[in-house]
Order: sequence, then structure tokens, then C-alpha cells
Amino acid sequence: MRKGVMRPGHIQLRVMDMDEAVIHYRDRLGLIETDRDDSGRVYLKGWTELDAFSVVLRPADEPGMDFMGFKVVSTEAMNQLKQELVDFGCPVEVIPAGELNQCGERVRFEAPTGHMFELYADKEQTGKWGVQPNNPDAWPEELKGMRAQRFDHCLLYGDDLDGALDLFVNVLGFQLSEEVVDTESGVRVAQFISCSMKAHDLAWVRHPEKNKFHHASFYLETWGDVLRAADLISMHDMSLDIGPTRHGLTHGQTIYFFDPSGNRSEVFCGGDYTYPDHPVVTWDADKLGKAIFYHDRVLNERFLSVLT
Amino acid sequence: MRKGVMRPGHIQLRVMDMDEAVIHYRDRLGLIETDRDDSGRVYLKGWTELDAFSVVLRPADEPGMDFMGFKVVSTEAMNQLKQELVDFGCPVEVIPAGELNQCGERVRFEAPTGHMFELYADKEQTGKWGVQPNNPDAWPEELKGMRAQRFDHCLLYGDDLDGALDLFVNVLGFQLSEEVVDTESGVRVAQFISCSMKAHDLAWVRHPEKNKFHHASFYLETWGDVLRAADLISMHDMSLDIGPTRHGLTHGQTIYFFDPSGNRSEVFCGGDYTYPDHPVVTWDADKLGKAIFYHDRVLNERFLSVLT
Amino acid sequence: MRKGVMRPGHIQLRVMDMDEAVIHYRDRLGLIETDRDDSGRVYLKGWTELDAFSVVLRPADEPGMDFMGFKVVSTEAMNQLKQELVDFGCPVEVIPAGELNQCGERVRFEAPTGHMFELYADKEQTGKWGVQPNNPDAWPEELKGMRAQRFDHCLLYGDDLDGALDLFVNVLGFQLSEEVVDTESGVRVAQFISCSMKAHDLAWVRHPEKNKFHHASFYLETWGDVLRAADLISMHDMSLDIGPTRHGLTHGQTIYFFDPSGNRSEVFCGGDYTYPDHPVVTWDADKLGKAIFYHDRVLNERFLSVLT
Amino acid sequence: MRKGVMRPGHIQLRVMDMDEAVIHYRDRLGLIETDRDDSGRVYLKGWTELDAFSVVLRPADEPGMDFMGFKVVSTEAMNQLKQELVDFGCPVEVIPAGELNQCGERVRFEAPTGHMFELYADKEQTGKWGVQPNNPDAWPEELKGMRAQRFDHCLLYGDDLDGALDLFVNVLGFQLSEEVVDTESGVRVAQFISCSMKAHDLAWVRHPEKNKFHHASFYLETWGDVLRAADLISMHDMSLDIGPTRHGLTHGQTIYFFDPSGNRSEVFCGGDYTYPDHPVVTWDADKLGKAIFYHDRVLNERFLSVLT
Repeated sequence: MRKGVMRPGHIQLRVMDMDEAVIHYRDRLGLIETDRDDSGRVYLKGWTELDAFSVVLRPADEPGMDFMGFKVVSTEAMNQLKQELVDFGCPVEVIPAGELNQCGERVRFEAPTGHMFELYADKEQTGKWGVQPNNPDAWPEELKGMRAQRFDHCLLYGDDLDGALDLFVNVLGFQLSEEVVDTESGVRVAQFISCSMKAHDLAWVRHPEKNKFHHASFYLETWGDVLRAADLISMHDMSLDIGPTRHGLTHGQTIYFFDPSGNRSEVFCGGDYTYPDHPVVTWDADKLGKAIFYHDRVLNERFLSVLT
Repeated sequence: MRKGVMRPGHIQLRVMDMDEAVIHYRDRLGLIETDRDDSGRVYLKGWTELDAFSVVLRPADEPGMDFMGFKVVSTEAMNQLKQELVDFGCPVEVIPAGELNQCGERVRFEAPTGHMFELYADKEQTGKWGVQPNNPDAWPEELKGMRAQRFDHCLLYGDDLDGALDLFVNVLGFQLSEEVVDTESGVRVAQFISCSMKAHDLAWVRHPEKNKFHHASFYLETWGDVLRAADLISMHDMSLDIGPTRHGLTHGQTIYFFDPSGNRSEVFCGGDYTYPDHPVVTWDADKLGKAIFYHDRVLNERFLSVLT
Repeated sequence: MRKGVMRPGHIQLRVMDMDEAVIHYRDRLGLIETDRDDSGRVYLKGWTELDAFSVVLRPADEPGMDFMGFKVVSTEAMNQLKQELVDFGCPVEVIPAGELNQCGERVRFEAPTGHMFELYADKEQTGKWGVQPNNPDAWPEELKGMRAQRFDHCLLYGDDLDGALDLFVNVLGFQLSEEVVDTESGVRVAQFISCSMKAHDLAWVRHPEKNKFHHASFYLETWGDVLRAADLISMHDMSLDIGPTRHGLTHGQTIYFFDPSGNRSEVFCGGDYTYPDHPVVTWDADKLGKAIFYHDRVLNERFLSVLT
Repeated sequence: MRKGVMRPGHIQLRVMDMDEAVIHYRDRLGLIETDRDDSGRVYLKGWTELDAFSVVLRPADEPGMDFMGFKVVSTEAMNQLKQELVDFGCPVEVIPAGELNQCGERVRFEAPTGHMFELYADKEQTGKWGVQPNNPDAWPEELKGMRAQRFDHCLLYGDDLDGALDLFVNVLGFQLSEEVVDTESGVRVAQFISCSMKAHDLAWVRHPEKNKFHHASFYLETWGDVLRAADLISMHDMSLDIGPTRHGLTHGQTIYFFDPSGNRSEVFCGGDYTYPDHPVVTWDADKLGKAIFYHDRVLNERFLSVLT
């Protein structure tokens, strides 16, 4: 049952060369740079996102994800969920308002897979970028690169998928929308969870190490935009992982590539919708190739092993 | 605040020639015929819909909408909402399970605009049509006509928009997502409400008569599918209203046309997304033309006056 | 039989406010401004066109088309056609090289409909805009507006369609690809002619006045680009004629709008292909509405009466 | 200079199981089966093609291409070209009318790469499939599978590319539109030739063996159709080679896969246009990966080695 968590609201990524990273996320993905702070972090957002930012790039010596944040519907809901996290036995830390520019207090917690997440209820609403708030036009003409519309979800790799699922479903009110299960052992190899109509707001693949990052995903409008993204990747000699293609899981249309620090990015469009009464969509582990890459029907080695 | 209403689950439409109506909804829109009942009603659904049906055609002497039903998340939520409807002063009638095939008990109520709505929690889940439930393929090859994916929303015309908004927002937990307001008088000329991430699950235009039906809308996947729909309309000499075009409100891409009884159908794709923290998008009434038909920027007379 | 005329190579249009006209053709249509000359003319081209220019805007007191030019395969072919034009009884004038910047000698003649045309064999090949000549990328990232790819064809209105057809087919080697014929009288109401695989390189509608201009058409890549064009028309408050829609004749996907001087522009994509052995595609005049606007199946009054 | 060769008109392919082959070409590619003959051959065509057939499947013990035929504009042009082939020193054989159903006399010749080609001037014009000849609708509703529009071109592998180019350009009037050249040695590794506005009607890759077949290509309308093709390949467990992707050469959007006998098929859309005055587009051999697969920028081993 939904408990007030609305959506993925931000991700903080570690990058090793900020100038190159900004070119990747601003000029190639087409996110809007909205702010920088004293610690050298750069803030960006997709043009359709109303809140002040959704991507934070932090200068670091190694790539990866610092944390992913979810916006909840109210401070009351956030505080209620904080208590439930504590009751569940989950370590919780409160990050004061202002630690991220234009963002209120955040409740940070560590999932059983070792990944850091946050809940927050307040972030300044600066509105869609490039269109007027009243009588809004369809889109702004000045977008760059892939014209990514929003930060959409993450795929993480980690060990304790069952613990993470228990936490997100039973404490935070997410729904298991899709999964890959080994039919013999019954082990869930991958799990996709949703707090909305989207087929996934967050996903994990089972992996022996804790706290690994597979990709951050950004939403495009059309399959033609996926082609445009593929062309830009080639035109700018960016590092392609795979695509354009379709996923079996969620059926979205997609392309994967790497930022200059080695963090994987995805842009995608389409995909199934989910409601709370929908049964879990299950893929068999022996069809994992088709589940991930619907056309190739085999995984490339990179997809399973290149993590940050 | 959401209160368990998940989505538009069905609509019952009056049609004057059932054979012609079935050709329209099954062969042209591409809905799947799933059932017929003793009273001569025909049941259909979009192929992506899991529940047993979403469109019911009833033989009648005049066109129009009998009622629109919303699926709620549980029987408890339905009963709670029934009580709140009664407390609000809204006449409520309970329709027993089985009155519609494969559908449980329905709570029927009349909105201040004179339209009949229903809540229900149970309908048999027969699954997506034409794809296997496990390891599901992307789409079934055998779809007809416009290949409509789901019944998506309705636009209704009626008088007491403020009363209807009060009911749907404060009792049923919908959100006002978009509106058209006369800036001088402050009168809300049109209102779009959502119980999901969709920019609208239901909408009204202000009109002196009660209980008028403007259109039922069905979701397509792409702008290319809207072109395909337009072509089919012409190839089968169907009655076109307007399109292909884009809406200003919600920014969806659309085409309108009429069934043989004179009920208006829409098929559309795209459109904005909405979250509970999103402020209402407001269009000025003097921009109503652009709000409705973003390209033409003027309303055609039919759009305002042809109702059933 | 083809006689060396390759393609529509340029059009000179009269515009009443050059600054506004440049905004229309450069910033909205997305043509590339390539040159200006001492007489105040502005030269532009679509980014895929190899030759130096294809559109010339001339400052004038009234709108309309000065002339349309066709590039022929060689000087020999041009001189041969010049002689055949003279033999046909057609007045011919030679315009010296350099009268248009970067363009060689042009053979100008008047068609029986009063329109002025030109043949030329030499124009400087400056290459595709924005992509390298070797190992060329798919497209340049810096395109503006509708990103029109090339000047494609014109539609003209005039009286002596039979004379014009005789001239273009029997002297210049064009092919009648499509036509609209009044089945009772046998009168050809519209004629589309081709010197290539394109369904039309030039077209006429029968009209009592000589030398009227209906529109210049520019090629887009996809139906998504037609939507983008429609959105831009609305976002910049440009004057829309009709669209997005499809033509019955040629089956292209299209939108019409006006430049600030009142000259009509079209951008379109798709459409049928033609070979020399293809029979003429005939539409009946009583289906003229569907032949022109395949979805609406009626002509708007503007299409027949607003000419420059 | 063009000499009357209009287009690729047919290809005869060897298949080892006719029932499976018909499923591939008719039900998956969506070609129309038009005829069968006493020798067990099956005839098919794309629905937009006016002539009676364009693909002939011949039962055989090994896969590959028997011959590819080009339609020329007239019997006179065919006989003239026959004489020029003889003068060039090319072995020529005349195949009598009727050897292929509904096809006139064919002039067969062997190219220096060992591939067999034909010229013919007469084939019964049965018209576009599924649409009426007058007032033609945009497309027929009953198409299957990938809805391939026409047989478009072939890619062949062979040794004497220079000889083949000499023959097709200097005798048959084709144009070299694109090429891949080893910049050090000056050797042309691949050559694309056109007898139309299409970027290629025929292409070769240099290879030590004579008379090898790489793929037959069929035209689709949109990038959305390429996705549909990719989905169908997966839904029917067909053997994928690579795609969806874009080519660098010609810039078309494409997917490759295999028929049950191992012959490679391509479906594609888009791509550049060519005129006789266009200079050759040259790719460097050290960019062969990007030239072939614009997004991956590396060749897969299959593309170079799996031939029939």
C-alpha cells in the first residue's frame, strides 16, 4: 500500500572530472544546470521536473552513487516513515535542511544491500524549465543533446535483495512490479519496484558485493529520441554499452552508455504501466537475456560486470 | 490526498445499432471483445488492461454515457468511500455483484453535474490480451485497427463543476491537475482531475445542461499510431471531428471522431505526468482555443456543441 | 523520358519585410543562411543540400514567386533543352552567370501558365551543412526550428495546365505522376509532375488567373518532425493554414502555414515513390477534398483562394 | 550517365525448406505471395510494388542468390544495353519470356565478381497490393508482420570490385554513390552504386571468394517499423544478426536477421538521397566499423564472415 513516497527525486553521483561530467550530463543528456555549491557540487534537472534539481554531481576520486533520494508527499509522511524505518531496525540519519541547496531536511537510511537512500518532503519548486507556468507551451526550443525529460529510476547491484524488498515494500509502501526468478531455486535474481504508475522507480540485480551502482536512467519522449541519443553518442565518441533496443522487463525502449567517470547512464522511453492491483510480472532466470535485452536475447558481459 | 481510487475501470455507453457499434469499438478502435450478456450488452477491453472489461455497449434509443466506474484498491477502501459519499450528502446506490459480468459489487453515485459514477473493488483479472503472463512479449501480433491500449479517461459537460470538484477531490481523493479559468470572473470553465500520475483521469467543461457526454478516450502508444488512426478513419469513411493535433491542456497528441451512434471517441498518446505536489496548471479562458487545440488555436463549433 | 533535368534547385520568393522573412525561413523552417547580395537578396539552403543555395528571398512590395529553377545534369543538356524550348515556341532568356551569387548561366522561360522557370547546370557545391564531407555524421547538432532538409517542390495555380504539361513532359522530360480529373468533362483539375523518384517535383492546380503561387515545400525526415513543426508554429504564433495531416495525392504527411508576407510554406515527410514505368495515379475531382486533405476529406476555403 | 536501368526488380533466392521460407518472407517480412510455378518456385512482392513480383524463392540444397534482376525502361534500352555488355566482353545469355511467370525476356550476364544479374523490360503490372488504383488509400489494412514495402537492394561479397564497378557505371549507367577506401593502399573495400535517387540500389564488399551473397534488403516506412521488426524477430525466435541501429554509409536505420536457410535479410528505413551531380561519399577503411554500424562503431564477426 502506498505510504506517501511519490517519486525518485534526486541522485548524487561521484565524478572524477567535473568539467567532463558537466558536458556529459548537461550537453549530451541535455539536463539543465541549475546550481553549484561551495563543496564543488553541480546541480541539474530534467526540463519537465518542477523541483529545483534531481541530479547532483560530486567531485570524487572514484565513480559511483552516493545516495538516491525520494520525495514524500508531506513532512508528516516523512516523519512517520522515519519512525517506521527505525522500528524496522534500519539505521537512520537526519541531514539538515540546506546541506543540498534549496532542499529541506532529509532522512537518510542504509538499505540491506548497502545502498544509501533518503526521504525528503521539501525542495524548492522552480517549475518546468523553459516554458511559462500558465498557458504552458509543449516544450522549450532551447534544449540540448538528448533532451532528457526527467531523472526516472536507478538500477543497483547488491546482495540482500530480499531484505531490500522487505524494507521498500513493507515500510515504504512500494510495490514489486516485475522480477526475474530462478525457477529451480526460487531465488529472485532481479527485482523492480514502483511507488507510482511507472513499471519501476528502482530496481536491483542480485550480486555478491554490497552497494554497487549499475545505472541512472532518464526519460525520453519517443523511440525517435532514442535514435537521436544513439546518434549523439556516436557523434561525440561517447562510450556505448548497448542499444538502441527494447527491454523485456517493462518493455521500455532504451540505450545505455557511460559517463567519462565510468558511471552508466540510460535514456529510455515507453514501457508498461503498473497499478497496485497488478500481479507481479515474472520472468524466468533462464530467459534473463531476453528479459534484459529483448532483441539480442543474450546479455553482454559488460552489463553484468561493469559497475561503479 | 489519494484515498484508494486507482483508475477509470469502465464506461457503459448507449448505442443505437449494436452491430455497427461493435465494428467501431472492436474493428476500428481495436478493442478486444470479451463478453456479451443476456441484456444484449457487449463487453470490450484494451489489450493492455488486465481486468475482464472496460467498455460496455448497451443497446438503446439514444446515445450517451450511462455511467463511468472507478476501480478502488480494496473492498475496505470502497466501503469507506461509500460512507464518505453518504456523509457528503451524495445519493448512493449499491449494484449487486454480477449485474455486470465478472464484476463485483458497485457503489453508484450521482455527481453534482448529473453524471453517474461507480466505485468497485473486484473485477476478474483475465490478464493482458494476447501475451503470455510470464516472460511476456511486448505486444500481440493480432491486434486490429487503431490497437487502442486502454480506456483512459472521459470528458463530460455539466453545470456544477465546483460541486463535482469538491466531491472528487475532498471525498474521493482526486487532484485538480489542470484548469481553464476566466481571469475576470474567476469562473473555472474546465477542470481536469487525476487519481494517478496521468494528467487526467476525468475532466469536465462547464455547460448549462446536466449529464452530457463529450468523449471517451483511449490510449495509443505513439504519434505514429495517431496517424494510423487518422488514416483508418478516412479509409473506413468514419466521421472525423478534428485531428491529428496536440492539446495545450496536458499536451497529449490526439484525434477525435464519432461512433455510428454519435458518441465521440478520442485516441491519443503522450501527455504530461502529474504528482500530488504539482501545482495546478492554469490556462486562461481567453486562450481556450489553444488550450484545447494547440495547433489550430481556435475551437471548432462541433467541439463545444455536439454532445450525447 | 528523362532528359537531364535533375531536381528543383532554387526558388526566388518576394518578401515585404526581410528581417521577418529571415526569421521565418532561417529560424522557423531551419534553413541555413548562406549569403546576401548587393541587391538585398538573402540566400538560404536546407542542410542536406550540396549546392550553395536553394531559396532566394527578394525584398519587394508584394509577395509571390519570381521564378523556380531546375538544375540539369550538364551544360550540354541545358543547351540542348534551350534549343528544344525555342523550337517548342517558348520565349527564352539567358541570365548571365553571377546574377545569382555562386550560380552559373541560367536559361529562363515562361510556361503557358505564366510562371517563370529556369534551367541551370552550374552552382557551387558547398556540401552538406554542418557535417564533414568524409566519414559524414548523420546530422548536425546545431540545426534550428523545423530543421528542414531541402527545398522539395512547388505548387502553382494557373490556367493553361495542358500547355504546361505538354512543355514539361515533352520538352523537359518530366513524367505526369498524379492527377485530379473531372470524370464528366475529362478536365485535369490538378497535375503533379516528377523528374525523379519523388511523387512530385512540381504541381499545378487549375485556376483562372495566370502565374499564381500556392506554396513552396520543404522536406522533413519524420512524422515526429511534422509534429515538431506544428508545435513551433503555435509556440511562435505563426499563421497556420492546415495540419498536421496527410495528403491523399502522394500520401505525404504535411502541415501548411504562411510566411509574414503571406507566402504559403509547407513542410512534409514521407510520400510515394515514382518510376518512369508507373502509370499515372488518378483521383476523381469529386474526391478532391480527400485527394488534398486525406483526413478531413474537405478543402478549407483558404487552400483554394489564398494565393500570392 | 543514366542509361535506362530503373531499379532492382527481382531477386531469386535459394531456400532449403520452402514452407519455412514462405513463413519468413510472407508472414514475417510481410511480403505478398503472388504466385507459384511448376518448378516449385514461390513468387512474392512488397505491397507498394506495381510489378507482379520481386522475390522468387527456389527450392535448393544450399542457400544463396541465383540472380538479381533490374528493370529497364524499354525493350530498346534493354537491347542496347545487351549489345554494350557484349562489346564490354561480358558473357550474356537471353532467358526467354515466361521462364519466370508474368515476366518477359531477360538478358542475363555475369559480373566480374561472379554474381549473376539480369535486365528485363517487361513484367506484368498488377498494381499496388490491397489499395484501389484510382483514389488510392494510404495503405492496406491487412498487411502482415514487418509490412515490408518493397525489395530495395542487395549487398554482395566478391573479389573484382573494380571490374564490377566499371561494368555497372560505364556500361549500365549506374553512379558510385558511396565507398569505403583504404587510405594507404587506395583499395576500395566497399562500393555502393545507384541507378536512382536512392543512396544504393546495389553494393559490394571486397572478399576473396566470388559470388557470395550478404543480404537482400527491404524497405520499411519508419524507425517505428524497425522497432516493430525487431520485436517480431524476438517474438518469433528468429535469428538476429544486429540491430536496431543506423548505418554510417547512407545513414539508413536498420536491422539484420536470417531466414531459416541462413540467407541474411535486412529491413531498413530512411537514408540519404543521391543525384547524378553528387560527389562520391567516402569513408576511410579504418572507420569501417562506424561506416557499417554507426552506433556500435565496431563490426560483429558475423557481418564479415556469414555469407551464402
